[in-house]
Amino acid sequence: MADVNELILSKAGSNVELIPEIAKHLIASGGKRLRPMLTLALADIFDYQGNGDVTLAASVEFMHTATLLHDDVVDESDMRRGKLAARKLWGNQASVLVGDYLLGQAFKMMVDVGSLEALRILSTASAIIAEGEVLQLGAAKNIATTEADYLRVIEAKTAALFAAAAEVGPVIAGQDDSMKLAARTYGMELGYAFQLVDDALDYGGSTADLGKDVGDDFREGKITLPVVLAVARGTDEDRAFWKRCLEGDDVEDGDLEQAIDLLKKHDALSDTVIRARDYGDKALKALEALPQGRHNEALADAVAFCIARVS
Amino acid sequence: MADVNELILSKAGSNVELIPEIAKHLIASGGKRLRPMLTLALADIFDYQGNGDVTLAASVEFMHTATLLHDDVVDESDMRRGKLAARKLWGNQASVLVGDYLLGQAFKMMVDVGSLEALRILSTASAIIAEGEVLQLGAAKNIATTEADYLRVIEAKTAALFAAAAEVGPVIAGQDDSMKLAARTYGMELGYAFQLVDDALDYGGSTADLGKDVGDDFREGKITLPVVLAVARGTDEDRAFWKRCLEGDDVEDGDLEQAIDLLKKHDALSDTVIRARDYGDKALKALEALPQGRHNEALADAVAFCIARVS
Repeated sequence: MADVNELILSKAGSNVELIPEIAKHLIASGGKRLRPMLTLALADIFDYQGNGDVTLAASVEFMHTATLLHDDVVDESDMRRGKLAARKLWGNQASVLVGDYLLGQAFKMMVDVGSLEALRILSTASAIIAEGEVLQLGAAKNIATTEADYLRVIEAKTAALFAAAAEVGPVIAGQDDSMKLAARTYGMELGYAFQLVDDALDYGGSTADLGKDVGDDFREGKITLPVVLAVARGTDEDRAFWKRCLEGDDVEDGDLEQAIDLLKKHDALSDTVIRARDYGDKALKALEALPQGRHNEALADAVAFCIARVS
Repeated sequence: MADVNELILSKAGSNVELIPEIAKHLIASGGKRLRPMLTLALADIFDYQGNGDVTLAASVEFMHTATLLHDDVVDESDMRRGKLAARKLWGNQASVLVGDYLLGQAFKMMVDVGSLEALRILSTASAIIAEGEVLQLGAAKNIATTEADYLRVIEAKTAALFAAAAEVGPVIAGQDDSMKLAARTYGMELGYAFQLVDDALDYGGSTADLGKDVGDDFREGKITLPVVLAVARGTDEDRAFWKRCLEGDDVEDGDLEQAIDLLKKHDALSDTVIRARDYGDKALKALEALPQGRHNEALADAVAFCIARVS
């Protein structure tokens, strides 16, 4: 992972000063590096010996970072990873363009590795992620969004990259289709679990405490599973409340507290976490088909880590 | 070219409705299709027999279209190709995300062709274009921009994609390095000429008539070669004028007319066109190394067409 971090920082370089400045702001501010870890672990699990895993892992993180830069512009977010979002520091314009640059660098790095199959998997993920974001834009501020709509969005915007990051491990290690499918399935299910937990955390998690950094999705009118469940289970009066807050951009003091009360009352947060656990279990199940040992344990730990954030 | 148009329209499709809507708005609104034409002509010149040229040509046009969508957001432009810009019709958010989608599709199509060398050339161009846009952002609203700064920007943001679009022709046709270099040089020089002409046209061309759609660069504070030349050749009073208009975002009625008068007085537009012709001549020179015949003539016509727009 140290190699990945080093490569990330070197490839975020450019003679155009603003680029490394913005890229490093975001990359150095941490983040969990979950996606590149998947690529490394799923190459190592097959005793992969080359350097391609490090390069692909870094390119996966670049794809993710580019998405964050563009997301913050699209969502008009002020904060990212506990710091001011890049767009607040350098403007929307630079955030869009540096995101494009990182995406270009990501593809260059993939080409360096030379696996057309890995390129196909990651470029497909890239198009799907953008599709998911557009889909989310259409679903935003619409409380008629169904659970199926929601799942379609998170599969595209989150799970697809987890799946691709995992699948390229066995691909460069020259494994057969059954191993690729197991890795892909593991990544996909973990991605679902991760996003569900994230969405529950945005309302304070299953215990629904009103903590720090809570309520971003609510204020942005994002329709996530907790809301979908609470709307479906609520009264007409509840629905009018959700409609005013999420569709009408009309959030008053005390609304977030009321939203959390409604989510609790209808078990919407705890049920979201239960579903995250189900996806986590499916991810663990997929691991059974992969070689056992140290790396398999690390991948199981990743599932536990994702779920533990919310418990 | 009909095949390219068909492929473009089919690959701009998506189950997410908004995507084909926006992509087709931009793609169907025409544009000169110069870049994909380069790829086709420079594959055909070597009697290339496969379908890879069509696919690469379409992916080049997608890269270009993605850039336009993002540029309009970054420049806050209202119009594109005589129509309302996509961002005015569907918003900045959708323009950013659909641009990302088209970029992802472009890479997927390149992977379909299966040439790692073409992938390397086009992904490198993708990163360079974004670098050029960031560079331009830094140079915007700064009248101290030099001619060298300006040339660095247009090489990256425009000429690099022309060069890449041309170079992939001999690459997929299995040609040697000398043919690749000739094609690349032709594309690069043509790209410079094209951008210089564009920049002169934004002030009405060498005859400097105040036509329709004139003055966008001026209003956006973009520092292009005509301005660089006029600033360098002007008095202190002229410089104060350019500073107020381009750095200070303080453009009043009559300022554009005064700007054009200054550009005329200092031969800034005619000299920009002279330089464009020089680059055009270098492009024609590069054609001499390539096989002669019908396709070579078409490539020479492309140079003449670029220059003729301004004459």
